[in-house]
Amino acid sequence: MPRIARYLPPLDWGRSYGRTTLTNDLVAAVIVTIMLIPQSLAYALLAGLPAQAGIYASIVPIMLYALFGTSRALAVGPVAVVSLMTAAAIGQVAETGSMGYAAAALTLALLSGAMLLGMGLLRLGFVANFLSHPVIAGFITASGLLIATSQLKHILGVPAGGHTLVEMLRSLAAHLGDVHLATLVIGTLAAAFLFWVRKGLKPLLMRMGLAPRAADILAKAGPVVAVALSTAAVWLMGLDARGVAIVGAVPQGLPPLTMPDLSPDLLGALLVPALLISVIGFVESVSVAQTLAAKKRQRIDPDQELIGLGAANLGAAFTGGYPVTGGFARSVVNFDAGAETPAAGAFTAVGLAIAALALTPLIFFLPKAVLAATIIVAVLTLVDFSILRKSWGYSKADFAAVLATILLTLGMGVEAGVSAGVLLSLALHLYKTSHPHVAEVGLVPGTQHFRNILRHEVKTDPTLLTLRVDQSLYFANARFLEDLIQNRIAGDCDLRHVVLMCSAVNEIDFSALESLEAINERLKTAGITLHLSEVKGPVMDRLRRSHFLDDVTGQVFLSQYDAWRALTSAR
Amino acid sequence: MPRIARYLPPLDWGRSYGRTTLTNDLVAAVIVTIMLIPQSLAYALLAGLPAQAGIYASIVPIMLYALFGTSRALAVGPVAVVSLMTAAAIGQVAETGSMGYAAAALTLALLSGAMLLGMGLLRLGFVANFLSHPVIAGFITASGLLIATSQLKHILGVPAGGHTLVEMLRSLAAHLGDVHLATLVIGTLAAAFLFWVRKGLKPLLMRMGLAPRAADILAKAGPVVAVALSTAAVWLMGLDARGVAIVGAVPQGLPPLTMPDLSPDLLGALLVPALLISVIGFVESVSVAQTLAAKKRQRIDPDQELIGLGAANLGAAFTGGYPVTGGFARSVVNFDAGAETPAAGAFTAVGLAIAALALTPLIFFLPKAVLAATIIVAVLTLVDFSILRKSWGYSKADFAAVLATILLTLGMGVEAGVSAGVLLSLALHLYKTSHPHVAEVGLVPGTQHFRNILRHEVKTDPTLLTLRVDQSLYFANARFLEDLIQNRIAGDCDLRHVVLMCSAVNEIDFSALESLEAINERLKTAGITLHLSEVKGPVMDRLRRSHFLDDVTGQVFLSQYDAWRALTSAR
Repeated sequence: MPRIARYLPPLDWGRSYGRTTLTNDLVAAVIVTIMLIPQSLAYALLAGLPAQAGIYASIVPIMLYALFGTSRALAVGPVAVVSLMTAAAIGQVAETGSMGYAAAALTLALLSGAMLLGMGLLRLGFVANFLSHPVIAGFITASGLLIATSQLKHILGVPAGGHTLVEMLRSLAAHLGDVHLATLVIGTLAAAFLFWVRKGLKPLLMRMGLAPRAADILAKAGPVVAVALSTAAVWLMGLDARGVAIVGAVPQGLPPLTMPDLSPDLLGALLVPALLISVIGFVESVSVAQTLAAKKRQRIDPDQELIGLGAANLGAAFTGGYPVTGGFARSVVNFDAGAETPAAGAFTAVGLAIAALALTPLIFFLPKAVLAATIIVAVLTLVDFSILRKSWGYSKADFAAVLATILLTLGMGVEAGVSAGVLLSLALHLYKTSHPHVAEVGLVPGTQHFRNILRHEVKTDPTLLTLRVDQSLYFANARFLEDLIQNRIAGDCDLRHVVLMCSAVNEIDFSALESLEAINERLKTAGITLHLSEVKGPVMDRLRRSHFLDDVTGQVFLSQYDAWRALTSAR
Repeated sequence: MPRIARYLPPLDWGRSYGRTTLTNDLVAAVIVTIMLIPQSLAYALLAGLPAQAGIYASIVPIMLYALFGTSRALAVGPVAVVSLMTAAAIGQVAETGSMGYAAAALTLALLSGAMLLGMGLLRLGFVANFLSHPVIAGFITASGLLIATSQLKHILGVPAGGHTLVEMLRSLAAHLGDVHLATLVIGTLAAAFLFWVRKGLKPLLMRMGLAPRAADILAKAGPVVAVALSTAAVWLMGLDARGVAIVGAVPQGLPPLTMPDLSPDLLGALLVPALLISVIGFVESVSVAQTLAAKKRQRIDPDQELIGLGAANLGAAFTGGYPVTGGFARSVVNFDAGAETPAAGAFTAVGLAIAALALTPLIFFLPKAVLAATIIVAVLTLVDFSILRKSWGYSKADFAAVLATILLTLGMGVEAGVSAGVLLSLALHLYKTSHPHVAEVGLVPGTQHFRNILRHEVKTDPTLLTLRVDQSLYFANARFLEDLIQNRIAGDCDLRHVVLMCSAVNEIDFSALESLEAINERLKTAGITLHLSEVKGPVMDRLRRSHFLDDVTGQVFLSQYDAWRALTSAR
């Protein structure tokens, strides 16, 4: 692949683009466009933005991703979790519904785009790995609950607020007396219909003779039916005049050119939220992209994905959108509908542009409660507490990270939750590696093997102590080994030799080297000789570049058995 | 050792306390007391506190450490680096010399003591390990330079200030016209004398027939001579009236009972500095204690050391002191002078209490320039840039951590420097483990061994890909393996089997497990079977508690050779 094609993937897939591919991409684009119209409106509502922001965020970003992204089927646009995080971040710096709020959303997209682009150019995609799977699972589950709860106010027709679960529930409870009955009926009916569409429509269509794939895709259009029916109902029955909240006038036209607010205070306040949104959006997007690519043995380049998503977010920042990423639901629909290249995404963008130009008057009477129902039904599939049970059974450290993430996300909001999860997983990992397993070993009689004296019947010698270290030696565990040896030799007057068996040591860093030197010095003062055995090649290369091999009182033995023979016969 | 004696070490060493031990401890105490008087005054000056604070900080803390600490020879009190950090921390919340300044020093000692005590009770001593050796070395070197520079104003007799090297040098340069000649002469003479004492006095005394140990100890009393001579000179020549800054009136009496300022704002502002002071003080103290204990095959319990140092700092907080820790110079003198138990420390405290009661009028005329010279000569031995050369030769990652620590400590102050060093070492370590070495291996002909195909002449099979992972699998590298396998199989149409050889995998955490499941799923869609080989016992135990072994498309082979035979003959 030529170098330029690495940064501009269309030069790669464009060469083999033909009529069949075009047809497949066009069909997929039509299906995805129909699905995206209500979804985009709903997510804009979730982010606290005017409805058109959701559509705008799906047009230019999807085109830029088509130009720079490496996934053939990923559909980029507003997604539930990122919309929630956007609302949480901007809610701290501006009043919902104000001019400043929409401008801050642009700034957030700009920051996020710049960070993703920068990470991509610096090839820092690996940073996302520090979000462990359990932390992501816990975060997504808790976010799903938060999102569903945040939408209840639209179903109930009350002006509740709050960013944490407790705040939201308390605010809802305070407004229970103000529930708007017509809104509640519409919202509940819509939610029930959408649940049925999700569970019952596909089997029904298949019983009616449709192929499974067609039934599946048709069932995905359920929200469009709910939108159409409820809009018609509100219009015909004049429910808006009786207090049912509606979407109202959405400006007709292509995405406007917008300029994000670049005031230093705002940039400073949004820096950390933008970083979290970038990393979480990237992780979500890459895992969807990889799952889809694997089905066709295609390749995803995570660093190039950063560039693609960065470009998409910059696009959102300058065309009236807000932070976007590759969404799970829409990408799967795109893939299942037969999309073969990112051109399908570009065609989807054209479809949405037409919708923005022509169709917005049709949704004037669309009740917000129906959009809320769409969101609730979509995000409840994200809620999956089984991660708690699974991680408990497998590893208590992972369980602790999940639990902390869920509780803090629900109790203190998305940013606190995901940060705590990342920090706790890192801390637990570092704790584990800072307490390495060290076994005192002896010779298995009749062999040249050395095993743990606590588990096996082995020969030992009172003048010789052999310790096998089951971990690379680095600063976090270097002093641990010092303490361990110091404690082991304290009061043992027979001891003449200590051998460190290094078969499982992949690295000795400078701190560990100095610890070894300190151990050597201290053993020397105590009249004990220090030896090493079974040191790996690369580790030995490093040691040769230091003074340690000159200073060590004993020798470096090729095998532990050599050490045993030399040190026990020398008496 | 009974459980209670673990928390109260005197119950252990007290049982064998006899007349010889008493004599040895008393002799050591007298020597250390003489050495500590000028040192305590000087460090108080460095911390920006009145001279008596240095003496007070040496009395009750040393007694409390004797009660709770595990080192037999450690001498606790004010030390150079902690004094500098105290000045930096309090300088941000109060004006030097104000009432609030001294009160904030007590608060800092209280916080530091509470943290150390808490870490000790929770057995969190391992936290100190995250300060890598190169970071500590770089930090100590940079601090030494900062301390020496900060004292130049006393030698020059100018009112300069600043907390970073640049600020200090700039402030000194601005005051160059105001240099006080008499002060400069006294300071320079004192510094020259002290340098000579350090380098030339011991050889001279030995030539005069003294035993090396006695010569060494006598040479350590050099500062007392400088103090006495310069005080006499100022008094006799009336230099204080001609503008030479002197210590002046130091209150006569035992340490007062003091109450730290507990206002929430102050506690909040001092939280991070207190943590850094605690950890750095602890690391310095424990490494001195371990070096000395090793010489007599004694045992140090780091968690109990935290309790001892915590108690000492709490003592300092309530008796007019400031943060303390185990000092290198004084502990070595204590050890060399023959101290056998912590009782020597208690006797030193009595000596200093007598000095506080009776001797303070004698130092009324002591010039501050001489104390500054004492500090400069003491800390310049800490400055050692060879760590840069040594770490460069051994490991570029360690070099980067040292360089960042030195530059940031000099350029932005002690807190920024040490924090940056710790974060950078952690980041570099995590970066290394997140990019594990993965080798594609093949069969060495005529053996059952498998080696890297890039380095050895080995047999391979186009339908079989064997990857050896040289690192434990955890969240930070789990996705790395996913990408690697995805890239390797993309476009390879002959491939039927992938084997992961796990001989160097000590752990598979929940994220890595989910990655393996994802890899398994993706390979399955691509028609490729996933196998494992040489999985270690404990890792296998974990895997048995998950669904992975049910879901994996292939098998788990005991040895890689078994896998090779089964998968290549099965064609």
